[in-house]
Amino acid sequence: MEFQDLVRRRGMVRAFRPDAVPEELVRKLLGNAVRAPSAGNLQPWEFIIVRDEETKRRLAQAALGQTFLAEAPVVIATCRNMERNAGRYGDRGREFYSLIDASFATLMILLTARNEGLGACLVGAYRDEEVWRVLGLPEHVRSVGLVGVGWPAEPATKAERIPLAEVVHRERFGQRR
Amino acid sequence: MEFQDLVRRRGMVRAFRPDAVPEELVRKLLGNAVRAPSAGNLQPWEFIIVRDEETKRRLAQAALGQTFLAEAPVVIATCRNMERNAGRYGDRGREFYSLIDASFATLMILLTARNEGLGACLVGAYRDEEVWRVLGLPEHVRSVGLVGVGWPAEPATKAERIPLAEVVHRERFGQRR
Repeated sequence: MEFQDLVRRRGMVRAFRPDAVPEELVRKLLGNAVRAPSAGNLQPWEFIIVRDEETKRRLAQAALGQTFLAEAPVVIATCRNMERNAGRYGDRGREFYSLIDASFATLMILLTARNEGLGACLVGAYRDEEVWRVLGLPEHVRSVGLVGVGWPAEPATKAERIPLAEVVHRERFGQRR
Repeated sequence: MEFQDLVRRRGMVRAFRPDAVPEELVRKLLGNAVRAPSAGNLQPWEFIIVRDEETKRRLAQAALGQTFLAEAPVVIATCRNMERNAGRYGDRGREFYSLIDASFATLMILLTARNEGLGACLVGAYRDEEVWRVLGLPEHVRSVGLVGVGWPAEPATKAERIPLAEVVHRERFGQRR
């Protein structure tokens, strides 16, 4: 759909129909995720597609019992590979760029899901080490988001926004002109 | 334009025509930025619109001499307000969610710019304290990206991508099935 309509219609979906999400659609989500920009084009992201019921259940548990995650037909764990850009950028790459860039890729998944008629929900509240263990992450790879994806069984949530005037400044912080 | 076309056509632009960018378009960029998702909908972002030549010059200097930044008619500094979500989420809000959410808002600006026919370039390589000082950021607000925005004087760069097969895993890291 038109980008501007997509922005208006996007929102989190936490209830899914049980119908499967075809692999082809998952590939579309990831095909767009890797089109995200990244510092020096080093693309410090990794994606783990989880369809196994037991693994999803363990992720939902690690996510402080957010059980809707286990009910999504697919969970995509977006991760940052902190070594992929550390060579060129050192600690700034490891700690800053890798999280920014993996966040970009995560938002691309959320937007693309909505564009394809899917629903998606991003979970960031989870016990880190439990998620790393379930997903078998090596030390240089860390999770960012757990994205539940499926056919929506509810409309996307529409959340209120802080008025623009409160978060926009001119030339210097605090200056509204 | 169609979202899928937008994703294909987006890219960084580092050369701008001198023509002004109307305030109305800047507001469109920011109007979409705040439509980004955020943990608990706490929206830990702040935006500083910089049009002043001297301020842009100082930002470009802080950005290790990336002079194209000073040549963009507008620079939008995207920032994270680490206190806005700390109350509910503590350190995880401060250090993790605030950077993820401000990154989402930053990508919304990049996508919207392209959708409106503008060019944009994201700069993340800069001397932190110099940027904070130039923008007058209080201690609980930290910069994320410096986004130069203007009418493109060159086509957007198209960068090669790591093949999907190298960054996609199944059920566990390293498993390709």
